[in-house]
Amino acid sequence: MNGSVVRVGVLGCGTVGASLIALAQRQRSTIKSRTGLELDIVRVAIRNPDRARSVDLPSSAFTIDAAAIVSDPEIDVIVEVMGGIEPARTLVLAALAAGKPVITANKALVAAFGAELFAAAEAGGVDLLFEAAVAGGIPFVRPLRESLLAEPVQRVLGIVNGTTNYILTRMTEAGADYSDALAEAQALGYAEADPTADVDGHDAAAKIAIVASIAFGAQLTADDVSCEGISNLTADDIAFAGRHGFVVKLLAVAEKFSGPNGDELSARVHPCLVPVTHPLAAVRDSFNAVFVQGEAVGDLMFYGRGAGGNPTASAVLGDLVDAAVNLRSGSYASIGSLAPFPMRPALELTSAYYVSVQVADRPGVLALIANVFGENGVSIESMEQGGTFMVGGDQSEGQARIDFITHQARGVDLESTIATLKSLDAVRHVGSLIRVLSAEEISS
Amino acid sequence: MNGSVVRVGVLGCGTVGASLIALAQRQRSTIKSRTGLELDIVRVAIRNPDRARSVDLPSSAFTIDAAAIVSDPEIDVIVEVMGGIEPARTLVLAALAAGKPVITANKALVAAFGAELFAAAEAGGVDLLFEAAVAGGIPFVRPLRESLLAEPVQRVLGIVNGTTNYILTRMTEAGADYSDALAEAQALGYAEADPTADVDGHDAAAKIAIVASIAFGAQLTADDVSCEGISNLTADDIAFAGRHGFVVKLLAVAEKFSGPNGDELSARVHPCLVPVTHPLAAVRDSFNAVFVQGEAVGDLMFYGRGAGGNPTASAVLGDLVDAAVNLRSGSYASIGSLAPFPMRPALELTSAYYVSVQVADRPGVLALIANVFGENGVSIESMEQGGTFMVGGDQSEGQARIDFITHQARGVDLESTIATLKSLDAVRHVGSLIRVLSAEEISS
Repeated sequence: MNGSVVRVGVLGCGTVGASLIALAQRQRSTIKSRTGLELDIVRVAIRNPDRARSVDLPSSAFTIDAAAIVSDPEIDVIVEVMGGIEPARTLVLAALAAGKPVITANKALVAAFGAELFAAAEAGGVDLLFEAAVAGGIPFVRPLRESLLAEPVQRVLGIVNGTTNYILTRMTEAGADYSDALAEAQALGYAEADPTADVDGHDAAAKIAIVASIAFGAQLTADDVSCEGISNLTADDIAFAGRHGFVVKLLAVAEKFSGPNGDELSARVHPCLVPVTHPLAAVRDSFNAVFVQGEAVGDLMFYGRGAGGNPTASAVLGDLVDAAVNLRSGSYASIGSLAPFPMRPALELTSAYYVSVQVADRPGVLALIANVFGENGVSIESMEQGGTFMVGGDQSEGQARIDFITHQARGVDLESTIATLKSLDAVRHVGSLIRVLSAEEISS
Repeated sequence: MNGSVVRVGVLGCGTVGASLIALAQRQRSTIKSRTGLELDIVRVAIRNPDRARSVDLPSSAFTIDAAAIVSDPEIDVIVEVMGGIEPARTLVLAALAAGKPVITANKALVAAFGAELFAAAEAGGVDLLFEAAVAGGIPFVRPLRESLLAEPVQRVLGIVNGTTNYILTRMTEAGADYSDALAEAQALGYAEADPTADVDGHDAAAKIAIVASIAFGAQLTADDVSCEGISNLTADDIAFAGRHGFVVKLLAVAEKFSGPNGDELSARVHPCLVPVTHPLAAVRDSFNAVFVQGEAVGDLMFYGRGAGGNPTASAVLGDLVDAAVNLRSGSYASIGSLAPFPMRPALELTSAYYVSVQVADRPGVLALIANVFGENGVSIESMEQGGTFMVGGDQSEGQARIDFITHQARGVDLESTIATLKSLDAVRHVGSLIRVLSAEEISS
């Protein structure tokens, strides 16, 4: 750092990198007037030197040698927006070891190697900031790390994947089937040609692993997150939810429990019936939100754009200014040390559940089914039996769909309920089993 | 500061002060493990030494001499939770002058004397933090000051008064009249016996003045905020809004415009019809939320509890930890210098409007009324004429209510429309004139 000028090296110049460079240039005078610092983006690492770029920098600023930027003594701060694990991990570790603050938007990297990176930042005595890695443009990581550092956070519920939230919004508001809504999301560029990482919940799992690390000081990775996606949800499930005052959302949940042998954590991604009066129910289209339940502060929610070049660049630039200010004062934001926590298996948790069963339409079947729930210790909150429909050709029979919402029950009890239901002669199909965010567990 | 121990003096021991002391004690080990610092609350200023307090501190910690706490060289940080302008202002200024960081939850003080206090903090080279003064427990001031420091913020829309939001929620969801909803809020302790400061918008005006100061680096006070309250809203207005896809909210708005002679600001508090699909529409009961529109980041919203002992204490404790960490590193969070901005008068702004008119039920009246809008340059987006009702005794006449929603129009044009309408022979009463947050101005 030379006087008030902070020289920045950017690794990667895709959508986010180009947006960041443009925003930093545009906001240069604002940043200078508010902090006294001038942010100069002096070097940018690219993969393909032949690609045209709409970035207002001289061609001499670009290089294909990312390692040279990291080791350049003229560079004060590194921004990593290249994505992927390698070479990003090696480059970030090298920068931290060289005493350079690093800002990264790389959720996969932070989720998989967070503990290693945090330790390297601590050892180097520099900032490692990653606001954009969890909820895109939403300022959430900093409030969680700093404003809520002393808050007894109990649970975090996130809608942190815009693709799946867009698909679920279309299924809810237009009555679309899953496959049609997915095709629409793909046509709009919200979903990849291979949507697996989004629709199976892996993207959300990486993000909630990072959230759990910060909220609970826990050492965990995306592999510790149990994961259910949305591809099995049907238009019937969504319609049932709507009739009963719920919308279906893909939630990423991080939660702390007091166990007999100390604290335990749960980190999971799964669809969930959310009451329409809950603030998370109003998070539509590709927007993201993170809902925090703290013992003192009560309910909080942070809402905004979880992806996109400009929102992500906004979060990266916020971190970049922070790192520059800290660099000048010789301080840095410590994440503290992360400790391993026992993970409580999803089946040991209690939740209300939505269960859909298709049965032969015979006298006594409803009582039979309801009895199975009771025998397994699962209490029913509400039930809806649809009209009879005919199934099959020559040997057709009347069938009916019965939908249940249970009171709070243990996952293991639901599992044994489902197993028994499947063994019954009258049961033709056990469909969706979806958790319900019930009034019983909502603070007010 | 003596090693890792930070000695804290608290001015005031009402609901917030007592909650803060309990929370800081409970979270002492968490704070120590995450920051290495021990927060010791060593002195507490009280007004009435005879009042019993459920605070776990020795009686020797309490004093009625607040000034002695501020000047005590053994005290490192001051928390001001006494409220009111004096003696709070004098004490805060004395603490800052003595080089002690100050955390305050006092919105009236920061709104009225922000520029003086910020300058004193800057001169003392110490923190002045006031997270709890804007939106209670919601971490909003810090994200706005830090995460969004470089974001080109265009507009902030806040539901920052829980009392009025509770009243409006009851009017919307239970069809209650204003006076019944107010009485209910008073019975629940959400509203004061004299509810003026809340229902006339003065509380919200103080908060949005602070928000505008930070968001735009502007020197303004609550006196610069134009203010309309909710006491004239009727159940009919709320019902009309509901039929047309809106809920009515009391919004506090801070907005920046590019004018011919540089930037101008608007800061105002007024009821507003908010589309039900807008995230602010889902902010129910006494919850608060602040919605931010930035050019890069797009739409953001911060939601939570705007009042209450524990949520407010959570925000104060977050600030207290921040100030303690900064004190150790010898740094502080500068608010920068505030500049005066020209305020754009509310009548010069454009908005969609809801207008309710009561007319004699005669042929041609609707065309006559509609014509008045057109002649004044106001274009009508939708109109609803209710059934005829009889008014008066012996000389009774049929009257009808006509409700309009306009397209974007200038306030002055609406004003002249209303003036002309009032002069018409057929117009019996011009009722509510309420701004509409229209689809035209919502980013998506």
